[in-house]
Formats: sequence, structure tokens, C-alpha cells
Amino acid sequence: MLQPERVVSDLRMSGSLWDAGPGLIGLRGPVLGLLRDIERELEALARRETIEEWRTPPGVSFETLERAQYFASFPQWLSSASHLSGDESVLREIATSHAPGAAARKAASIPETVLPPAVCYHTYAALAGAVVDAPAVMSAQAVCWRHEGGRLAALERGWAFTMREIVCLGSEGDVRELLQRSISRTESLARELGLDTKLEAANDPFFAPTARGRAALQQIKGLKQELVLRFPDGRPLAIASFNDHETFFGDAFSISLARGGPASSGCAAFGLERWLLAVLVTHGTEPANWPSPAAWSGAEAR
Amino acid sequence: MLQPERVVSDLRMSGSLWDAGPGLIGLRGPVLGLLRDIERELEALARRETIEEWRTPPGVSFETLERAQYFASFPQWLSSASHLSGDESVLREIATSHAPGAAARKAASIPETVLPPAVCYHTYAALAGAVVDAPAVMSAQAVCWRHEGGRLAALERGWAFTMREIVCLGSEGDVRELLQRSISRTESLARELGLDTKLEAANDPFFAPTARGRAALQQIKGLKQELVLRFPDGRPLAIASFNDHETFFGDAFSISLARGGPASSGCAAFGLERWLLAVLVTHGTEPANWPSPAAWSGAEAR
Repeated sequence: MLQPERVVSDLRMSGSLWDAGPGLIGLRGPVLGLLRDIERELEALARRETIEEWRTPPGVSFETLERAQYFASFPQWLSSASHLSGDESVLREIATSHAPGAAARKAASIPETVLPPAVCYHTYAALAGAVVDAPAVMSAQAVCWRHEGGRLAALERGWAFTMREIVCLGSEGDVRELLQRSISRTESLARELGLDTKLEAANDPFFAPTARGRAALQQIKGLKQELVLRFPDGRPLAIASFNDHETFFGDAFSISLARGGPASSGCAAFGLERWLLAVLVTHGTEPANWPSPAAWSGAEAR
Repeated sequence: MLQPERVVSDLRMSGSLWDAGPGLIGLRGPVLGLLRDIERELEALARRETIEEWRTPPGVSFETLERAQYFASFPQWLSSASHLSGDESVLREIATSHAPGAAARKAASIPETVLPPAVCYHTYAALAGAVVDAPAVMSAQAVCWRHEGGRLAALERGWAFTMREIVCLGSEGDVRELLQRSISRTESLARELGLDTKLEAANDPFFAPTARGRAALQQIKGLKQELVLRFPDGRPLAIASFNDHETFFGDAFSISLARGGPASSGCAAFGLERWLLAVLVTHGTEPANWPSPAAWSGAEAR
């Protein structure tokens, strides 16, 4: 098995991976083909569970994240989008400046939207106030943004990265069953890819002391599990996480069960670039050594 | 044919389209299936020309856009991404605030990256300084961001939207031939979808007086063409554009031909949500009336 730094430096050297800024990479060549095979497999895995595929908006509102208590939980990651003021004189100054990039950076408006830190916030917002009578299960893939300061590392921890999520809203039992089936399908996909992974109890890095109690509860009650691959130096790479939120989001977004009471929710989340990295550290950067998609047992069997 | 406002209001009513903020929409249900059929067709169309598919970074650097003279050309659209300062005390204030969304908006750092206004800037940046000996043709699909103030309208003009581009760098003749073939393939796809479109001479809305000369040249020399559908009220919807940049980007990014001199470049660009809207205003929002993908002549014949 290779160290991830070695894989990334090989890909940079061959031009298959390049940087547009800290935590912002592009991919081309055979390695992109492999990412797209992984993408298709994860979509097929999701489709076995999912009533509906969604395409979520590229921004999420500050109000939605307030409702989700995001700012007490993970403010450290927050990334947002702004635009320039429409004021002609400001635009004229930028257009004629000798350092227009710097001028434009200074003239940016206050942020108007959050760049989604995860896909699932969209589903709670879209279903706010709804009554769920059968489990509602949806899936989506989207670019997500989490700024992790000095910890950013290509493929392993991007400022922007690609996430697929399966989200379930329903009864406590619906959510547990969905998560259990997702775990077993995900473990089987990891095996087919030859990945040496282990399911581990985990908890989120909640920021505020008020939210940290949730991390302890996650551990004690087994609410968060991650499928983890370990690099040769022992560092862990979580390629999927399985999260039981109990009624946290059902309460926060007033999503109820037909029989009364708040809905439970849970999600399975997959970081696509991490799956790519997991295959590359395991099998190397030479395409001939990669598992062929034809050999993967495929969506039908999973 | 329907007016687009009617289509969008039907989709909102049925829950197939929803808003996460001005110019930021989500899609679900049959209409997303149709968008994905269109996505596959445009990818197949691109693959007939393209040596390589790229996945471009979700951010583009201010330096790249400076080099492309973007700030004199289209500063009015510029959108950028920032994150919160890593300062613990700032984060603590946000986490414990009674209006954490507002606090977070105020605490955003100066923008670190531009949200890409188009895919092709990435290709010039990645090939900067290179020598091109055969036409280099690549394609990519990505979420692009252009803020159009009060003109934002769902599907028609999003703050964020999905763009596929085919980009060619090579000789003047390589670029012209690529654009000509792309036009004829795109017209044939539009016909198969039953769209009543026309190819029209166009020019970009350059901002600065210094850049406006380029708009006049575009018109005179026929450097920009758009495939346009007209709504019942006569308003135009450009669903594709074909752009000959001559040696503008070759000069700006020092991309040269093996035989000497700067490379020419050109791109064909497709707005996916606009194609979706074009099909919906033409055939209505009832899936039974949509052209079936099986009936489209498909990539092989195109």
C-alpha cells in the first residue's frame, strides 16, 4: 500500500491532478475514468434504496443552517458565496484597476448564500413542515465545501469535494434498517474494490461546548459509524459515514410522522475523492492494476 | 409553446423545482430525469470531438482571471467564495450568537477563490506555457456562477447553473472546423428534441469601454454565434454558444503552436437548465409528451 502523499505527487507529475488553489483540484486522464466508475457504482448502490434522486441547489441559505444549529456545531468549516455589488462605479474601478483581482476581492458583498457543507441540509429544508407517512428516502451527489485550514490535502481533505448522500426520514426503525442495509452494501463494494476497511464508531467534531454533548451521545449510543481505511502510517481515511440523527432534524424542521411525533432521520455519506484515493493507495497509480468495473459485482447483485 | 414563467410555476407547484435563494434551484422527479437525459446526450455529443474529459476545480484563481482580462470584460457577474477565519474567539462568538447566520456573514474572510464563471478558464490555466502540436480538445461539465442581479430567473438565468463546454486549442483552422462540426451536431440534437431554434450572430456583454471593441469585432468577424429559441413573447433563450477567440487566450496564457506563434482557441458552451427549459416550453410539463431519449438519434449517429 502507498502513502497518499506519494499517490498525489505521482498524479501531479503526470498532470492527472492539478491545483487551482488550496483544497481545489482538477482531475483528468485515466484517474478521472476511475472516479467516474466509482461515481456510477455509488449511484447504483443508492438507487437500490432510494425513492428519488435529487439535484440539490449549489447554495444553502443561512436560515436553513441556523435551523439545523449548524453554527454551534461546525462553524469552523463554513464557506460562503458572495458577488460584486452591481454599482457601476465600483465595477468601473475594478475594470480599470492595475490589480483588478485584489480590487475585486475587496469589493465583494457580504455573503449571500452558504456553499453546502453537506447534501442533506437541503432535504430537511425542502421537507420542512411535511408529514411523512412512509419512509422518504432520497439521494443526491453534489460538490460540498468545508474549509479545514491547514489540514487541506488533495483527494483526502478538499476545501471543495464531491459527496453522495442517501438520506432517510421516517420512523426510528426505518432509519436504522436503511443504515444497516447501506453499511452492508458499502462493505461489499469496498471488498470488491479490494479495499481493506473496518467499520468504526465515530463522532463529529462539534465546536461549541453546548453541542459537544452530542458528540458524547453519538459515541455512547453508537449513532455514527465510519468505514475506515488506514494508510501505511496508521492515519485513518473515512470513505463513508452512517449517521443516525434520531429526531434532531425532524424536531428542528417540524417534519412529523403520520402517526404523530417528529420524524427520525439518518444519512449515509460517501466522499468520492476519498474512494478514489483509497483505490489508488491500495492498487497504485498504474491503470492496469486497478480493479476493472466489469469485475465489480455491480448494482444488480448488491 | 408555453411561456417559461408558466413552466417554472407549474414545476414549483408540483415540488419538482424549489428555491434555496435567488438564482439557486433544486430539481427532483421526472423533470430531473429529463435533465439527466439531456446531460447524457450533450456528453455524448462532446465525446465525438473530445480527446479528453476533464473534471475542473470548483474554484478558479483570481490570477487566472486577471490573466484572461476577465475583470475588464465581465466584472458584473463575478462571484467568489470565502470561509470563516479560523480564529477561535470569532468562531465562539458565532457559535453562541442569537443570530449566528448574520454573525457568520459579517465574519467571512476576504474571498479566496472565484466561483468559475465558465469552464474554459481552467483549460487555459492548466495549459499555460504549453506548446500544442495537434489540436487539444477537452470537455467538462461543471456548476458555473454568474450573478445577474435582478435578471435572475429559474432555469433561464441562474446565479449558479450547469454548463458543458467543449474547448479547442490549435491552429485557426482546427478551431473553425471544431466549431463548425459542433454547430451542425448541436442543431441536429435540437431538431431531434423538436426545438425550433435558429443560429444567430451574437456578442458578449463586455463591461469596460476598453473591452467593448471586442464586442464590435465579434459581430463584424462573426466570432460568436448562438443557437437561440424564442419564447412566445419573442424573448430569446440562447441554449448554446460557439465562440472563436482567435489568439486572445493563446496570447494571454502563452500557449503556442509547435510551428510557432500563439495557439488559437474556441469553445462550444451548453447551458443544461436552458436546454431543459427549451424542451419544457416546447412540449409542456407532462412527461408523456416529452421526446423519448430512445427516439433521439443518439451519439453514434451524430
